[in-house]
Amino acid sequence: MTLQRPTKQTLVEQIAAQLEQLIEDGTWPVGERIPAEPELVKELGVSRNTIREAIHALIHAGMLRTRQGDGTYVCSASSLAPALTRRLERSKLSDTLEVRSALEQEGARLAALRRTPEDIVRIRSAYEACIRAEAAGDIEGYIRADYEFHKEMIVAAHNPILSDLYDSISESVRQVVSYGSGHLCLLELHSELNARLIEAIVAQDESRSAEAVRDYLDASRTVLLKEIQGGDKTHHE
Amino acid sequence: MTLQRPTKQTLVEQIAAQLEQLIEDGTWPVGERIPAEPELVKELGVSRNTIREAIHALIHAGMLRTRQGDGTYVCSASSLAPALTRRLERSKLSDTLEVRSALEQEGARLAALRRTPEDIVRIRSAYEACIRAEAAGDIEGYIRADYEFHKEMIVAAHNPILSDLYDSISESVRQVVSYGSGHLCLLELHSELNARLIEAIVAQDESRSAEAVRDYLDASRTVLLKEIQGGDKTHHE
Repeated sequence: MTLQRPTKQTLVEQIAAQLEQLIEDGTWPVGERIPAEPELVKELGVSRNTIREAIHALIHAGMLRTRQGDGTYVCSASSLAPALTRRLERSKLSDTLEVRSALEQEGARLAALRRTPEDIVRIRSAYEACIRAEAAGDIEGYIRADYEFHKEMIVAAHNPILSDLYDSISESVRQVVSYGSGHLCLLELHSELNARLIEAIVAQDESRSAEAVRDYLDASRTVLLKEIQGGDKTHHE
Repeated sequence: MTLQRPTKQTLVEQIAAQLEQLIEDGTWPVGERIPAEPELVKELGVSRNTIREAIHALIHAGMLRTRQGDGTYVCSASSLAPALTRRLERSKLSDTLEVRSALEQEGARLAALRRTPEDIVRIRSAYEACIRAEAAGDIEGYIRADYEFHKEMIVAAHNPILSDLYDSISESVRQVVSYGSGHLCLLELHSELNARLIEAIVAQDESRSAEAVRDYLDASRTVLLKEIQGGDKTHHE
């Protein structure tokens, strides 16, 4: 740990910023327990109350979580994902899908420009998982594999902010949507469009790549919104 | 105020969530001072320490700010904008510009579909401010008017999440970029592309609208990145 004794400014804010830094740079990785209060008190030379307030700030930001009787754990590497997730919870699904579409079209375009040979291997392997799930008639498995495939595509765009925003939004959509039978008729179309997408990315064809994503999302949106309106209760309006 | 006495779960988290709600729904508007600690203690029936920890959580989230000897003020209506801004501070300007481009292209498309007569009036009036600044040779004024024009365009897309993300990103770009002489040569091109954009939005032509934005952003990006690399020190890598 590289904690420093604070010198000026609000003490709690300084401590909170230091702890956040340790989480963001991976010194305290996601999933791990942070040192106990007495240890932090000793290391930082500030009161227990100050430590506690700083920790509460990070809990509220969604970066830390307390497990009853088992200490405090890191649950997110930045405060952006939790803040965005909270914001999406108060949003209409149709608005969320439009933002996902914006990011994914640009992601597909950039992926076509920047994909490395390793990216192609990962994208292809994610695509094959989709094919296997489709062949097995495993809808849930297919949806999961399809999400992974699109995430790998975004990774190939090599833009970390785009990825962060996309992941939160995509995860948010996944959590509110319960996939019903309406998805059966999408499977075949999805597969075809995903195949077109891979082809375009491999061929480094920006506009065909973005076009494939747009067609894919337009097809999905119709079904998703119909299922939501069809009675699935969600936290979206 | 509609504060309730908390019943279960972590007390601090509950109080923080309640205060956040009051800010988000505008009960405590941006720019106003929140009630003093003793008042909150009385109203919520919890200890001063609990109130203080909850307030620190919101300060850390960027929603509240303390003014020395003058109480605590609301400075942002949600935690998303501050979290995104912090994230962008650690990002490359080129990555930020790509995300802005993604949102703005989709925004232009949706604006073409959804603009109301009132939207057109606002967009036109923002555009006229650009023209006036250009005619006066006022570069700083032009840049400001141009940002406003693009913001009004995004508002016409009628998607609140898209607007929120766009505003933070656009503001972030504006803060790191110091506009140099390189922008002189952009003015004329900007004006022409903005005119094309308005025309497409009025004509409800989605693809021409998105295309105008893309051409506009491509032209700007080249100049922006050159100026940044040309020596302007920023907090972007």
